[in-house]
Amino acid sequence: MFITFEGPDGSGKSTQMELLKGFLKEKGYDVVISREPGGCPLSEEVRRLLLDPAYEVNPVAEALLYAAARAQHVAEVIRPALSAGKMVLCDRFIHSSLAYQGYGRGLGEELVMAINRPALQGVWPDATFFFDLSVSDALLRKSAQKELDRLESAGEDFHGRVIEGFRSLCAKMPEMVRLDASETVEKIQQKIRTTIELNF
Amino acid sequence: MFITFEGPDGSGKSTQMELLKGFLKEKGYDVVISREPGGCPLSEEVRRLLLDPAYEVNPVAEALLYAAARAQHVAEVIRPALSAGKMVLCDRFIHSSLAYQGYGRGLGEELVMAINRPALQGVWPDATFFFDLSVSDALLRKSAQKELDRLESAGEDFHGRVIEGFRSLCAKMPEMVRLDASETVEKIQQKIRTTIELNF
Repeated sequence: MFITFEGPDGSGKSTQMELLKGFLKEKGYDVVISREPGGCPLSEEVRRLLLDPAYEVNPVAEALLYAAARAQHVAEVIRPALSAGKMVLCDRFIHSSLAYQGYGRGLGEELVMAINRPALQGVWPDATFFFDLSVSDALLRKSAQKELDRLESAGEDFHGRVIEGFRSLCAKMPEMVRLDASETVEKIQQKIRTTIELNF
Repeated sequence: MFITFEGPDGSGKSTQMELLKGFLKEKGYDVVISREPGGCPLSEEVRRLLLDPAYEVNPVAEALLYAAARAQHVAEVIRPALSAGKMVLCDRFIHSSLAYQGYGRGLGEELVMAINRPALQGVWPDATFFFDLSVSDALLRKSAQKELDRLESAGEDFHGRVIEGFRSLCAKMPEMVRLDASETVEKIQQKIRTTIELNF
């Protein structure tokens, strides 16, 4: 199974992934944890470029860079792991591109999907957990950090369009499961485990 | 006018671009010289990743990285220069992607065009000079270099498919002008100037 975790930074994705990893390992599964952009040496280099505040990146170039990092990550990590029967948990995947570039940057879902279709190489998540958190709460959680990267510092309007984008996707994409990120860690983890067990 | 120079490394593109630049400046034109992949800070960073022999790059990821570098280069350098009425001379552009990724890597022209369409942002060369050189001659010229980059060291079969790709494109794309790269520098430059003057 390929399970992805989506939503704003600071919404609790990493914590929940680690808890789920422990649960799945106890159940005897071989679990691979990865992230996007990144997950392999070339894609981590692309991530560094994407998050560097020094660049004013053209929106189409940005979408293509995310897709390039994804193509390498799928070919080098995700597809081989799935073929070997492993469980793959990934922090961000295609839905982030649709929400951030499609809605946030305004490129539209269709163009972002067209750019990503060859990158996906037929791989699509079996379940996508969307950590829904209001923009103000997300910003509040992030204010604890010292330095914001290029995307984090893109402004409240941008992040508002992104969260609305995630919600629109969630309303129509059957693999997406909405989680209220303001709930307790335990409650959210319980929801995730229940969903996964229903899909086993 | 937007003029691009295509063909294998060592086929004489840079020399001819410099000579043409001098000629055009004498005629009173404002000339911008650039190159791909690269031509602006972000795209030069992508170039560094693309040519680094350390990575085994997935063919789709490679095509997307070239397209990303192109999107940024078009938005930041080429389109603004053309809008300002400047002459833009560029060492490699879309035809290199079609020949290297489409034919060399075997992705096909159609997929490479689909990946590049958003990157081009409506920009297409007015004239594309193709420096035709046999694979054996190109390798001979390159053997003078010490270290080959990732694409240069991709093997004779690959470079054979690339040059055949360029020739196929040349047979059907009206903006492409074939130059015999084994002719003298003076003779090639004369052909280039004649072609450009016919298009003025």
